[in-house]
Amino acid sequence: MGRWEPDARDRLVRAALDLFSEQGYENTGVAQIAERAGLTKSTYFRHFRDKREVLFGGQDELLELITEGVAGAPESAGALTAVEAALVAVAVAFTEERRANGPRRLAVIASNDELRERDALKMAGFARAMKDALRQRGVSELDADIAAELGILAFRRGYARWLETGGDFAAVARRALEEVRVAAASLERPHPSN
Amino acid sequence: MGRWEPDARDRLVRAALDLFSEQGYENTGVAQIAERAGLTKSTYFRHFRDKREVLFGGQDELLELITEGVAGAPESAGALTAVEAALVAVAVAFTEERRANGPRRLAVIASNDELRERDALKMAGFARAMKDALRQRGVSELDADIAAELGILAFRRGYARWLETGGDFAAVARRALEEVRVAAASLERPHPSN
Repeated sequence: MGRWEPDARDRLVRAALDLFSEQGYENTGVAQIAERAGLTKSTYFRHFRDKREVLFGGQDELLELITEGVAGAPESAGALTAVEAALVAVAVAFTEERRANGPRRLAVIASNDELRERDALKMAGFARAMKDALRQRGVSELDADIAAELGILAFRRGYARWLETGGDFAAVARRALEEVRVAAASLERPHPSN
Repeated sequence: MGRWEPDARDRLVRAALDLFSEQGYENTGVAQIAERAGLTKSTYFRHFRDKREVLFGGQDELLELITEGVAGAPESAGALTAVEAALVAVAVAFTEERRANGPRRLAVIASNDELRERDALKMAGFARAMKDALRQRGVSELDADIAAELGILAFRRGYARWLETGGDFAAVARRALEEVRVAAASLERPHPSN
């Protein structure tokens, strides 16, 4: 795919974010994005299925990293340790380029209902991948559901913080997971009298 | 809306589930559903925006009940107690009619990618409503996120169990929430050495 334009993908993402920020997501077309990037529409479609996907690229890579991360945790590891391994495994995808684009990307997504839905489905897909990989390790349905949801909360919080602070995504995400774990363990029992 | 056909909505849902089960969701049209229910297409569209929505009716009512349930919990209640109040509040919507349709409804949703996405978005919407209502009570962002996600897990587990056992949805959902809470509090700490 486009060996002669090694940075085509990054150029398309940057051009799209420029245009979405300047004139709005709704008012921007794929042809315009390609033109701004100095590429053709057909190059665009070799990289992204449609206009929306330029904002959600790399999802398949993250899904794979999550699955491999959970699967690769030591055999003795519990559910949360395996989730932590997934957060560490995805760090390789969180490059400086991704961080530079992050704030504008989030702002565009927040501006549009359809994009917010797409983002919610992406997160649900990540949770599903974590859960399935945990089930493969023999974790119970309930623990896998909970650990995956807490893992996704940590992922989101870690991502937001990493956009601000930079540094190693793995370290930021691990701290976020520990905060989430402590908070989850500290929620009160609904019926103290029971 | 259709006072002269007081049960139009239920008839449309039943007709749709009959047809989806007999011949598949993809092969069924709105006109056919209306015909099977002995109603007109325009009556269908007074009740449901499109074909998909016949499977997701009542979502706005549930969102309101969730918000009111959380808001109506005693002032002293913590996040999980407020979530529990929401699960109790929604029980009024879980009628015998809904239970009778439930298994076929779930089977149709599971059969189709687009419907599974729609269902995931519905659940994300419930989580969001819970979280927002918890934030209104002064619950921290993190605790609100966690309590809402655990609440939705309890909601889903409670719903699945209630379809099997029947009885009072509130009681089933409360038991599910307690199970989720106990499991969440029991997840291991990832780094015992830290």
